[in-house]
Amino acid sequence: MAIPTRLTDLLGIEHPILLAPMGSASGGALAAAVTAAGGFGFIGSGYADSAKIRAEMAAAGNARIGVGLVTWALADRPEALDAALEHAPPAVMLSFGDPTPYAGRVKQAGSLLFCQVQTLEMAKQAADAGADVIIAQGRDAGGHAASVRGTFGLVPAVVDAVAPIPVVAAGAVADGRGLAAALMLGAEGVLMGTRFAASAESDWHDALKQGAVAAAADDTLQTRVFDVVRGVAWPTHFPGRAVRNDFSARWHGREDELAARRAEVNAGYDATAAGDLSTRVLWAGEGVDLVSDVPSARDIVARTVAEAERAMAGRRPG
Amino acid sequence: MAIPTRLTDLLGIEHPILLAPMGSASGGALAAAVTAAGGFGFIGSGYADSAKIRAEMAAAGNARIGVGLVTWALADRPEALDAALEHAPPAVMLSFGDPTPYAGRVKQAGSLLFCQVQTLEMAKQAADAGADVIIAQGRDAGGHAASVRGTFGLVPAVVDAVAPIPVVAAGAVADGRGLAAALMLGAEGVLMGTRFAASAESDWHDALKQGAVAAAADDTLQTRVFDVVRGVAWPTHFPGRAVRNDFSARWHGREDELAARRAEVNAGYDATAAGDLSTRVLWAGEGVDLVSDVPSARDIVARTVAEAERAMAGRRPG
Repeated sequence: MAIPTRLTDLLGIEHPILLAPMGSASGGALAAAVTAAGGFGFIGSGYADSAKIRAEMAAAGNARIGVGLVTWALADRPEALDAALEHAPPAVMLSFGDPTPYAGRVKQAGSLLFCQVQTLEMAKQAADAGADVIIAQGRDAGGHAASVRGTFGLVPAVVDAVAPIPVVAAGAVADGRGLAAALMLGAEGVLMGTRFAASAESDWHDALKQGAVAAAADDTLQTRVFDVVRGVAWPTHFPGRAVRNDFSARWHGREDELAARRAEVNAGYDATAAGDLSTRVLWAGEGVDLVSDVPSARDIVARTVAEAERAMAGRRPG
Repeated sequence: MAIPTRLTDLLGIEHPILLAPMGSASGGALAAAVTAAGGFGFIGSGYADSAKIRAEMAAAGNARIGVGLVTWALADRPEALDAALEHAPPAVMLSFGDPTPYAGRVKQAGSLLFCQVQTLEMAKQAADAGADVIIAQGRDAGGHAASVRGTFGLVPAVVDAVAPIPVVAAGAVADGRGLAAALMLGAEGVLMGTRFAASAESDWHDALKQGAVAAAADDTLQTRVFDVVRGVAWPTHFPGRAVRNDFSARWHGREDELAARRAEVNAGYDATAAGDLSTRVLWAGEGVDLVSDVPSARDIVARTVAEAERAMAGRRPG
């Protein structure tokens, strides 16, 4: 079975399921695996890191995959867009910033322009910039997002505001129920992060994958502390959703002091083992309650589609 | 057409649509109108206010309606539960506190126990207390809610955790797309607040109804300032979602100072006209983008059902 939508038509794929371009998890292997499963994979590019883009595109071989770029980071490293467009990917995703300065080059290169937005105002800006697809990301998402809007209300509002541009739902989508719900809200597909981060092909350390399996969404929060300690210059209105741990308990709400003492605290942070989740960041969205294993990307896509079909078939009006 | 679910079976109603027991909007007239339309109305009871409960029950005539109670307020005014149970309503809803001390009396009176919860842990507590229905309310909701969880991820997680207890989705549900999405997430119905607050039968001042029509969800926030100035003793972990205005711009983030100066500031607040939305609170959930008129409760129920049926019919697996 398949779930055809305007998104699957546009990308020429089977299932309306996209891999979020997570810097820590979405390398070429995972992106290629999602595409091979009938969805569509985006590699993360770090912070507009040309070398990483080239390495991950090479790792993906000839797979049809896209590239995700953090828009605010492009201002300092505009050459990363050249790297992203070198292989004329089917789609480029711009997130976390005004896409307008970069939209023309993406489209001239023949790539579809996917813009991820976090508010209704940003959706209108992306539509004006010429977005081919708009991803409406709620603060329910893992990793970076805004805090203003939740997935449930944002998606239909964006659908109405940018019609007929196809909209994709992101934020707490982790199974087929979420896919089916997104379609009901008017989306043409979903973007999943946390679910794919805990997959066999993800670049995450095994401790992170097992951490996601064990985590409860009640224990997540949006915080800046992990960016501050790592010295990553995220705009303050884009915190990251992570699982609470000893480090966030100590520093959340004391970001200014953390920034002032960064050199010292960062040394301690970096000295911990990669699997030390009491200190290190475990990004997780509010769909993490639904993550209970570490399957292959193929299994995730297949079960998500099957579950969505069951959900939709089970609710026939009487 | 109708959308039968385990919720409609349990309540003996036609459509799986509940009116949220909003203290400011959900009087007997609105609750009775929602029930007459085939859904089910809950009256708000203020803060465990026995006189209000009796007045609104009388205003509803013989309509089959339920009573909503703010659980933390019952500790000081336990007699309000007696008032709620006087007419043996089909259902009593307990929200914002541990339902355990009150659950037994509700069930002994022959009423169904509806518990509204905001986290997965609270859902498990409500299940242990014997809830017949659990309402999973995301922070996307208007008025009071917690801040921990959003509607999209909370609903399926609660469904899994409390099965086979039926779950109702609340928070940013304002049209039939939201109803259909809630059903896909595994809910058996929806609880709508903001949408019904802007209805003909709502107790809201016309200025509030028109304010909801004009409001954008990007401009809402969860804040305690309107409770602090009015001297309402809400626990700090239950802020209220409202539309930003001059008053919230001045005081949000300065709640301690506001509390210290309450007598003075409150006098000014109360001296404003009831329709002065630059100062007075306009509660609104993130579904408010979808509110563009002030119809009757009957029209809201009918169009919500029709739209949900269209959404579900339009997404047949291919």
